[in-house]
Amino acid sequence: MRTCWLNGSFVPEDEAHVSIFDRGLLFGDGVYEVAAVFQGRLLDADRHLVRLERSLRELAMPSPYTAAAWLEVMQALATQNRIDEGLVYLQVTRGAAERDFAFPAAIKPTAFAYARSKRLSDDPAAAGLTVHVVPDIRWGRCDIKSTAMLAQVLAKQAAREAGAAEALMHEDGVVTEGGSSNIWIAQDGALHTRPLSSDILAGITRDVVIEVARELNIPVVERAFTVDQAIAADECFLTSATSFVLPITRIDAAVVGNGAPGPITQRIRDGYLARAARLTGDSAALSRSA
Amino acid sequence: MRTCWLNGSFVPEDEAHVSIFDRGLLFGDGVYEVAAVFQGRLLDADRHLVRLERSLRELAMPSPYTAAAWLEVMQALATQNRIDEGLVYLQVTRGAAERDFAFPAAIKPTAFAYARSKRLSDDPAAAGLTVHVVPDIRWGRCDIKSTAMLAQVLAKQAAREAGAAEALMHEDGVVTEGGSSNIWIAQDGALHTRPLSSDILAGITRDVVIEVARELNIPVVERAFTVDQAIAADECFLTSATSFVLPITRIDAAVVGNGAPGPITQRIRDGYLARAARLTGDSAALSRSA
Repeated sequence: MRTCWLNGSFVPEDEAHVSIFDRGLLFGDGVYEVAAVFQGRLLDADRHLVRLERSLRELAMPSPYTAAAWLEVMQALATQNRIDEGLVYLQVTRGAAERDFAFPAAIKPTAFAYARSKRLSDDPAAAGLTVHVVPDIRWGRCDIKSTAMLAQVLAKQAAREAGAAEALMHEDGVVTEGGSSNIWIAQDGALHTRPLSSDILAGITRDVVIEVARELNIPVVERAFTVDQAIAADECFLTSATSFVLPITRIDAAVVGNGAPGPITQRIRDGYLARAARLTGDSAALSRSA
Repeated sequence: MRTCWLNGSFVPEDEAHVSIFDRGLLFGDGVYEVAAVFQGRLLDADRHLVRLERSLRELAMPSPYTAAAWLEVMQALATQNRIDEGLVYLQVTRGAAERDFAFPAAIKPTAFAYARSKRLSDDPAAAGLTVHVVPDIRWGRCDIKSTAMLAQVLAKQAAREAGAAEALMHEDGVVTEGGSSNIWIAQDGALHTRPLSSDILAGITRDVVIEVARELNIPVVERAFTVDQAIAADECFLTSATSFVLPITRIDAAVVGNGAPGPITQRIRDGYLARAARLTGDSAALSRSA
């Protein structure tokens, strides 16, 4: 059985539970992060923890653990559960209290985490995936990585029912995000992705891909584009912490480019993987030498 | 200790817990209802259960219990916890499964419920309350009574910090709802409230108040109004299952009418209370004679 972590203790999965009065359950009053595990090591977990702090701050939630404490828990979960490639998920809620929308006085936050395996370097979706276009009906603070995500659940379910691997969300025809990813197009040798605002989540992988593109001398333009522009683009891809960089080769029935992963997408994916291998290799070496 | 109810069993409050993999906790993938308890009896619980069915259906969630089974559980919670005036809360989530946004195949829904006391007939807010105006930043399906309610949490917290009892949400100056209530104005002898759409929840108390108004020969106009129109109205009030009918006498710094509960609001509140007493009195009599 998997080992999870809950409020300071490692516990078997079937003993990891929270009160029915937890505000995460009653209101979606919680935030989360997912970091990849690559070569058995956390990838960019420090950046995820910076974003966690921001989400907590935006919701005026206390931060129950330091980044150092989280890193220790996250790596322990990866190691104890023998994750070579996969992810660590962590969530913080405002805690359990008698139900009342406004914040309760002085309650202890709930914090939990778990790990699981997932193919990353050889994700079969690297051969190209289909996205399904849906209206973005989310709330006005998509920059906060909150767990109140019913709109994303419905978007990604609609995608699955349409035979697609991911949702492509738009507002009035302008692409916002994927269901749980950022969306990019390559056009005339440059990458385009939507600028940061309260309309989208500031993806950690999005940030890293901007850096990877710079290293590869591929220009990045932070500018919104329409669904039609994505369909007509040379290439289209998505990024997320646990998908890395995946080519979008169809948008519903429309084929993007020639229907195969494009060369720029491939260079970005390769560059991302090389960086990941470098970073997690270094970490492992560091760990062995300690 | 309070007795709660979880997945078919009555359990002490401190044993009522769900898995950290419950989708209610991970995604806000759940729905809920709150029904008033008046004179020890459920009020309009049948109507709440009809709405519960609709919420479940809109989210393609299976309905785990019949209305008759729910009514029995809800009344038992009220009785066992000796609630004279108060509420019964119930929630259904899609259940626990390995985390994935789209619906998991064949999992058991999670269902739980609890009761608590609350002053209803002599609610001190019946003397008039203040609301605080905030932008409505909720998602596009406010007609579904889902638990993904972080926007409402933030709205009602902002209200509390502004010294107000409730939030008044608006889109571009047009009133949508209260943080957890429907909003009404009285103008020239008629009631105005926003028509039903995906922008607001179809309040059970809103429906009942329309009926009460008809019995009292007070015209009801289902038409949206602005925050400014609410401030300038003769009277303003809110309705909810556990507030019944409460006068809004201030909208932030602005005084509504003469700053005291108005006569139409009072007639509606009295009419609502009389109906509640009649219904729950009948139920009690029925129960005694059974």
